[in-house]
Amino acid sequence: REKKIHCVTSYFSDNQMKNEHETKQIIHSIKVGISLVLVSLLYLVDPLYEQVGENAMWAIMTVVVIFEFSAGATLGKGLNRGMGTILGAGLGCLAAVLAQNLGAVGNKVIIGASVFIFGTIGTYFRLIPSIKKRYDYGVMLFILTYNLVVVSGVRADQKVWEIACERFLTILMGFIICICVSLLLFPLWASDELHQSTVSRFQDLANTIQGCLEEYINIGIKEENKSVASFGVCKSMLNSKSKDELLAIYAKWEPWHGKFGFWYPWEKYLKIGEALREMAAIILALGGSIEISTSPKAFTSVNQTIQLKLCEAIGSDVVWVLRELGDSMKQMRKCEADTHISEKLKAAKTELSLVISMFNISAHENIDALAVASFIF
Amino acid sequence: REKKIHCVTSYFSDNQMKNEHETKQIIHSIKVGISLVLVSLLYLVDPLYEQVGENAMWAIMTVVVIFEFSAGATLGKGLNRGMGTILGAGLGCLAAVLAQNLGAVGNKVIIGASVFIFGTIGTYFRLIPSIKKRYDYGVMLFILTYNLVVVSGVRADQKVWEIACERFLTILMGFIICICVSLLLFPLWASDELHQSTVSRFQDLANTIQGCLEEYINIGIKEENKSVASFGVCKSMLNSKSKDELLAIYAKWEPWHGKFGFWYPWEKYLKIGEALREMAAIILALGGSIEISTSPKAFTSVNQTIQLKLCEAIGSDVVWVLRELGDSMKQMRKCEADTHISEKLKAAKTELSLVISMFNISAHENIDALAVASFIF
Repeated sequence: REKKIHCVTSYFSDNQMKNEHETKQIIHSIKVGISLVLVSLLYLVDPLYEQVGENAMWAIMTVVVIFEFSAGATLGKGLNRGMGTILGAGLGCLAAVLAQNLGAVGNKVIIGASVFIFGTIGTYFRLIPSIKKRYDYGVMLFILTYNLVVVSGVRADQKVWEIACERFLTILMGFIICICVSLLLFPLWASDELHQSTVSRFQDLANTIQGCLEEYINIGIKEENKSVASFGVCKSMLNSKSKDELLAIYAKWEPWHGKFGFWYPWEKYLKIGEALREMAAIILALGGSIEISTSPKAFTSVNQTIQLKLCEAIGSDVVWVLRELGDSMKQMRKCEADTHISEKLKAAKTELSLVISMFNISAHENIDALAVASFIF
Repeated sequence: REKKIHCVTSYFSDNQMKNEHETKQIIHSIKVGISLVLVSLLYLVDPLYEQVGENAMWAIMTVVVIFEFSAGATLGKGLNRGMGTILGAGLGCLAAVLAQNLGAVGNKVIIGASVFIFGTIGTYFRLIPSIKKRYDYGVMLFILTYNLVVVSGVRADQKVWEIACERFLTILMGFIICICVSLLLFPLWASDELHQSTVSRFQDLANTIQGCLEEYINIGIKEENKSVASFGVCKSMLNSKSKDELLAIYAKWEPWHGKFGFWYPWEKYLKIGEALREMAAIILALGGSIEISTSPKAFTSVNQTIQLKLCEAIGSDVVWVLRELGDSMKQMRKCEADTHISEKLKAAKTELSLVISMFNISAHENIDALAVASFIF
C-alpha cells in the first residue's frame, strides 16, 4: 500500500510541478510583452522620442535579445552585453582616431586589418570552454561593437564618440527596463529551480530504490506487475548535467534573495548532482538485472533467505539516508541526524560485507552506500 | 601486451583528435575574420557604400551573429534569421499600414497592444521545446523585426516598406557572405563530427569492456595496477546527449556533401547514441563492482573456474561485436558479418544462461548483450 501511496503522491507532485512550470512560462511571456511595450514608448511618446531619436532601436533590440527566462540569465546576458559594448566601443573609437591620422587608403587598410585581427582572436576566445560558458555573449558583442564603431569612423559626419555614447545610453535604457521587470515583477529565480530540482532528485532516487526493493522481494510472490516506469526518472537524471551547469551559472549572477545569500556555494550543487547521477546509473543497471531475473525463484536455502533480509535492510537504510539528506537540504538546515546517518551507513557496510562473504550477488548495493557515504563525509 | 597497445593507440588517437579539434577552431576563427573583412568592405569601399549606406550595419550584425562553428549551424541560424525577418517585417508593415488609418492616439494604442500581443505569444512559442530546439532564433528575430518595423511606422518619413526592404537586402548580403565562406572555405561539417564521435564510441566501449575483463580475470594474479582512467570515457559518454542532439539538428540543415546524402537518417544516430549511453551506464556499474571485489579471490572450485571462462568468452564476444559494428559504421557499409554477429550473440546468450543457471553473479553482462542485440535486430 505504501508503494501505491508513493506512486500517487509522485503523480500529484509531477502534475503540480508541470502546472507550476506552465504558469511560470506564461508569467515570463507576459513580462516580456510588458517590457516590449515599455521600451516601445521611447518611439511612441513624443517627448521621449525627441530625446532619443532613431537610437531607440537599440533599446528595443536589447530588450528582445537579453530578456531570458530566469532573472540570473537576464542579468548575466545584460551585463555581458554592457561590458562587451563598452570594451568594443572604447577600442573601436581608439582605433578609429588612430587610423584617422593616416592617409585615406592607409586608414582603410589599417581598419580592415584590425577588424580581421580582433574578429579572429575574439572568435577563438569564444571557443574556449571556460569563456564560452559565462562570457560567450559578451565577447560576441565586443566583436560586433568594435566592428560597427571602427567602420562608421570612416564615414560618420558626427564624431564617432558621440554615436557610441548615444547608442550605449539607449542600450542601458533597455537593460534597465529588462532588469526592473525581471527582478521586480514575479521574479523567476534560476537558484530556486536548481535548489528544488536537486532536492526532488533525492526523493526520486529514494522512491526508485524502494520500488526496486519491493519488486525484488516480491518477485516470487506476486504476478507480473512491474513499475518499469519509475526508471524514467533515473534516465532523465542521467541527462541533467548540462541543464544543471547552466542553472548554476545563472544562479551565480543572481543577487541576494530569499534563502540564498551572496557567495552561496552553487558549485557544491553541481558536485551533489554528479554523485546523484552516478547513483542513478547504478540503479539503472541494478534495475536491469532485476528485470532479467524475473523467473520466480524459490528462496529455499536458509542462506538465501538471510541474504535477502540483509539486502532489504541495506536497501531501506540507503532509502532512509537519501530521504533524510533530501529533507535536510530542502529545509536548508545542517543535517541533524548526522551521526545517526553515519551509524546507519556503518551498519549497512557491515551487513554488506556479511552478504558479500556469504554470497557474491549484491555487490552493487555497496556502490550505492559508498556513493552516499563519500558524499556525506 | 594487447592492452598496452590499446592504451597507446587510444592515447595517440586522443592526442590526434585534440590537435584536429584545435586546428578546426583556428580555421573557424580565421574564417570569421575573413567574413568580417569582406562585410566591412560595404563600408570601406566607396562605390559599395554609395549603394548601401548606413544599412551596411545590418550586414555586419548578421555576420557576427550567425557565423557558427559548423556549416549546418550557420545555415540554420541564417535561414532562421531570414525567415523571422521576412515574417516580422511583413506583419509589421501590415500592422503599421492598418494602424495609420486610425487617429494619432488610436494608432499608438493599437500599435502598443499589438507589440504586447505578438511579444507575449512569440515568447511563449520560444519556450515550447520542439520550437526552441530548431526555431528559437527565428522566433526571436520575428519579435524583434515586427517591433522595429511597427514602431518606426509611426515616425518614418520614408515608407515603412522601403526601410524593411533595404534592411532585408543588407541582411541577405551578410547571409550570403557567411554561407560562401562557411561552405566553400575548409567547411567544418557537424555531420562529420556526429558520425565520427558515434563511431569512436563503439571503439571506446569495446576497449573499456576489454580492460574490465582483463582486470577481472587477472585480479588474483597481478598486483594493483588499475586502469580506472578508462571509465572516464564512459562517464563523458553519459553526458553526451545534449551535444548529440545539437549536432543532429545542425547536420539536418547541412546540404548534400561527402558520404551524406539528403534525408540522411540522423535520428538513427540519436537512437544509437541512446543505446550506447545505456551500455556505458551498465559498464560503469559493472566496473564499480569489479573495483570493490579487489580482494584477491582464489578460484578454487571447478564451478567458478568454468564460470570465469564463460564470462570471458561472453565478454570478448561483446567486444568483438562492438568492434565489428563500429567498423562497419565507419566504412558506411551494411554490416557483412550480419549473420555472424547474430550467431555470436546467440552463442553468448546460451553461454550466459548456463552461467546464470550455475551461479547468479554475472547477470549484468546479460544486459550488455541484450542491449547490443536489441540494437541490431
